[in-house]
Amino acid sequence: MVISIAHLGPRGTYSEQAAIAYQRWRQQQAGEVSQLCSYPSILQAIQAVAQGQVAVAIVPVENSIEGSVAVTLDTLWQLETLQIQRALVLPITHTLLTYATTADAIETLYSHPQALGQCQQWIAQHCAKATLIPTRSTTEALQHLKASPTTGAIASAWAAHIYQVPVLATDINDQPDNCTKFWILSPQGQSHGSHTSIAFSLPINAPGALLRPLEIFAEAGINLSRIESRPTKRSLGEYLFFLDLEAGQGDEHTQKTLKQLENCTETLKVFGSYVTIPDARALPPECAPES
Amino acid sequence: MVISIAHLGPRGTYSEQAAIAYQRWRQQQAGEVSQLCSYPSILQAIQAVAQGQVAVAIVPVENSIEGSVAVTLDTLWQLETLQIQRALVLPITHTLLTYATTADAIETLYSHPQALGQCQQWIAQHCAKATLIPTRSTTEALQHLKASPTTGAIASAWAAHIYQVPVLATDINDQPDNCTKFWILSPQGQSHGSHTSIAFSLPINAPGALLRPLEIFAEAGINLSRIESRPTKRSLGEYLFFLDLEAGQGDEHTQKTLKQLENCTETLKVFGSYVTIPDARALPPECAPES
Repeated sequence: MVISIAHLGPRGTYSEQAAIAYQRWRQQQAGEVSQLCSYPSILQAIQAVAQGQVAVAIVPVENSIEGSVAVTLDTLWQLETLQIQRALVLPITHTLLTYATTADAIETLYSHPQALGQCQQWIAQHCAKATLIPTRSTTEALQHLKASPTTGAIASAWAAHIYQVPVLATDINDQPDNCTKFWILSPQGQSHGSHTSIAFSLPINAPGALLRPLEIFAEAGINLSRIESRPTKRSLGEYLFFLDLEAGQGDEHTQKTLKQLENCTETLKVFGSYVTIPDARALPPECAPES
Repeated sequence: MVISIAHLGPRGTYSEQAAIAYQRWRQQQAGEVSQLCSYPSILQAIQAVAQGQVAVAIVPVENSIEGSVAVTLDTLWQLETLQIQRALVLPITHTLLTYATTADAIETLYSHPQALGQCQQWIAQHCAKATLIPTRSTTEALQHLKASPTTGAIASAWAAHIYQVPVLATDINDQPDNCTKFWILSPQGQSHGSHTSIAFSLPINAPGALLRPLEIFAEAGINLSRIESRPTKRSLGEYLFFLDLEAGQGDEHTQKTLKQLENCTETLKVFGSYVTIPDARALPPECAPES
């Protein structure tokens, strides 16, 4: 049986790279054959797995510079049917693509606003006279290159390979430790692993009520590796909190702690326990699959 | 002296509406004459006030559905020189603009991804066959209307007035309580008012360390009306926390509590105390200033 893996497209996105890294890991672990299915939005990739069109979806949840991916957290909270199977952390390495022969010849530079933001010091130093134009994705930025030799785009080395566009400079991120965490989602989970992701709303309309849940984890000696707030969408000032616990659900102590948490939260949702796939890497160009 | 107010453009954005509401409030309060200066990004509007090109900037900080505006929080943290003078809450009311005579005749619907997300149930019900195309702003969406009578755009009634485009349906938000909070920023603050905004990083690389700051506020009886986490941008899992306190800095009790907080945070920044301008409203078309 060929398993389908949903991810955000088009070809050449970082999400597709994460999906290929996951696909290769499945192949190595269990010799499984799988195929990638790209979707035009993160929402549609998550809906595809919730509706049973694909076996799993791999979606970005957090970038070390830009922060959490709101649509992933909000959709997971709303759907209630998906569990996190694994996490995967992909290094993000930006590259300058252009037909120009020097960076300072670039007059117009296209990329996704996040990529432009992540390279702003490099741009100021090397493409000082360039006008920055935001695009909907890093691959959309590539479409503008053919038009003129004074245009440039920021995307991955791998996108450059797929779209056959010349690379002028590599590793142009201002922060070298740029990476994005992805979650692999499916309807039923094995739900064992070292980390557990949960989210809850609070009975009292004030973030002061967050104190008691944090006390429960401190008393239980369970460390939190992440905390994110999202609006409840009911009214300004009401929040959901998304937490990652450094503890597995299988453990009786964790179970007891989550039981305690139920008593001081309005709604508590547990998205499963899982491990992080080790050593995911940005794909070298030769890993690019045929389209 | 004419005071300049920086905001995110172009003409017809919700940010411009907030800027006009603020301009009118200044006029009413002190008879001050001011002019609006639009900038192509939130970052550039904030930089304009930090560099003294304008007296104040008004920028979005939080939407009740989409959550916090990352660039506003991150830039305020980095610059260190700006204070919050006031807050202003603007209701967000989306409108369907089109030359089509019925909503179900629309085949392509353009808008900013946030506006498309905020109207998704209405769209599914009334424009079921429309393909949704994200644009960089709600006003950019209007540019696509002239091309064909089977296209539509979601923007404000006020943008429709400015760009002279027909309105087919009003109040199409799925959540009626959609609103956006703006901050008015300038280099020196009066720094008195009922709320104080702060942000801090923690000495230990784990959100478990957030417990002690929350305890300090609970012990002091100071309520928090908001808590947001943002990445430090150093590495995945390290956060800054942005808090709004229901207490003014002028108060000795608050001063003492902030002093205590200094001892359990790595870096603590206080962005000033301020009040919220009452009764800001979405502008009716007749309020549109001449361009």
